[in-house]
Amino acid sequence: MANKKKNFSGVIAPLITPFGDDGAPDPERFTAHAEWLMANGCTGLAPFGTTSEANSLGLDERMELLEDLVDAGLDPAKLLPGTGMCSVTDAITLTQHAVDLDCGGCLMLPPFFYKAPSEEGLYRYFAEIIETVADDRLKVYLYHIPPVAQVGFTLPLIGRLKKDYPGTVVGLKDSSGDWGTTKSILDAYPDLEIFPGSEAFLLDGLRAGSAGTISASANVNAAALYDVYKNWQSADADALQARIGGVRKIFQSLPMIPFIKAIVAHYRNDAGWAKVRPPLVEVPVADVMAAIATLESEHGFKMDFGTPA
Amino acid sequence: MANKKKNFSGVIAPLITPFGDDGAPDPERFTAHAEWLMANGCTGLAPFGTTSEANSLGLDERMELLEDLVDAGLDPAKLLPGTGMCSVTDAITLTQHAVDLDCGGCLMLPPFFYKAPSEEGLYRYFAEIIETVADDRLKVYLYHIPPVAQVGFTLPLIGRLKKDYPGTVVGLKDSSGDWGTTKSILDAYPDLEIFPGSEAFLLDGLRAGSAGTISASANVNAAALYDVYKNWQSADADALQARIGGVRKIFQSLPMIPFIKAIVAHYRNDAGWAKVRPPLVEVPVADVMAAIATLESEHGFKMDFGTPA
Repeated sequence: MANKKKNFSGVIAPLITPFGDDGAPDPERFTAHAEWLMANGCTGLAPFGTTSEANSLGLDERMELLEDLVDAGLDPAKLLPGTGMCSVTDAITLTQHAVDLDCGGCLMLPPFFYKAPSEEGLYRYFAEIIETVADDRLKVYLYHIPPVAQVGFTLPLIGRLKKDYPGTVVGLKDSSGDWGTTKSILDAYPDLEIFPGSEAFLLDGLRAGSAGTISASANVNAAALYDVYKNWQSADADALQARIGGVRKIFQSLPMIPFIKAIVAHYRNDAGWAKVRPPLVEVPVADVMAAIATLESEHGFKMDFGTPA
Repeated sequence: MANKKKNFSGVIAPLITPFGDDGAPDPERFTAHAEWLMANGCTGLAPFGTTSEANSLGLDERMELLEDLVDAGLDPAKLLPGTGMCSVTDAITLTQHAVDLDCGGCLMLPPFFYKAPSEEGLYRYFAEIIETVADDRLKVYLYHIPPVAQVGFTLPLIGRLKKDYPGTVVGLKDSSGDWGTTKSILDAYPDLEIFPGSEAFLLDGLRAGSAGTISASANVNAAALYDVYKNWQSADADALQARIGGVRKIFQSLPMIPFIKAIVAHYRNDAGWAKVRPPLVEVPVADVMAAIATLESEHGFKMDFGTPA
């Protein structure tokens, strides 16, 4: 199962977005972290996911940051930017822009303002984007995250989009947090590239035919996740999975997005990295330091950024 | 109570947004409907509300449509455009633009992607917008619509924003659909301009000190709503309120936004008016015609657009 040809596979980080003193996104910190991740366990990057505070960014900010990654030399084929928006117009703008940069795929939220939209309405949203962009290079990864977006994908909707846009709708990130849901999608559509949105399901997912994981913690723990991915058929796969499970529990002990940024701030010795945009708020430094102490003492966790320049 | 000086009051329509054959917003239909409403019962207009499919529009589309209204001669002091976005950056762009056009106020959704944000995070979002725009002309109307946005305003948050930005945070639209909530806000902050998001609470609201209503159905039934507003202290106020209640039940018998657009399409004899953007879908014409027949036969409903030019 895991040998089939995939467009994306492995460990993909929903890249966190740093902000400068002026509150604007900081392209230097951003590209530096992207490069570090690709050298330290990530097989791809998903800028502008939930962990990226994507929906807290402006349209122009998103497009400029994506250009910064490509300009810095990141391989666009390894980039899976989030381009789904409430507005089909804005989604087309972002999707077209990502395709023009030759990005390997687009991770697309459904429109999430109106609740309980019809399946037909959601279908039309994706159809309009795909038919307006009208480019064979476009590879769509549906982003199913009902705990946050509230609006998600049913199996029939996934099937209809896949059937009508073969070779374009090629994957799905499942952040339902429910293994039963992930398994049902894997069973229904084994040729889809499925990424559980949590590394808690990394090994189970690989055994059931998933493509890897796109998980917040890949921003700080990618190498350990990659160990599971690389060795999923080995005898110690379960032990490797258990290791990332223990670390994940600590990550979850504080609000995830600000905590992950605070961890990077700590190991980079760069307090500015911890900045988040409203409605998120920073985690108190004392809480961060206590949690990092536990990560180090109980799990041998560390991030190695070398000697700062 | 109702005599206090208000920035906005009366019947405000969350202006529906028409689309042309190419799918783009249609400025001619848009400004024509705005002008008709101001001549037929509305005291103000709230373009880019929920009923306007605001979140299905692009940033540029919203700004251009607002300019179209002002260019057409609508009094900007009577315009209350929606400018709240998930992204604080985008919200600042829209809010600044509305203030530059001298709009009477801005109706602001909280950032609605992340669920269960902290009060502090929501406070910072509004504080950042207000302090970045930094203009005494800015009048903020908080938009509380938890059934759709899921994220809403607590009484302490409203109080903190009002206290820290007096003269700027001046009103609130309450689309909770719950009179107890509206009443609690009216009781806590009698100097705030409160607009129930449904005309079901128009008379009760006025009796309790509210400023009027901002309701979807004002797009098609403003004159009847205005009758209640104008005569709320008269002997037949309850009868007038009962009349709009009966009509409202029919409006609610079909998906509200597409149905309202279909009603306008019918009376304007202009099928294009019924077009909606995904994720919304049009209401079947047969259902629309049946509902309109009931509106006319049982409630004497009609819209008079005169003879088309």
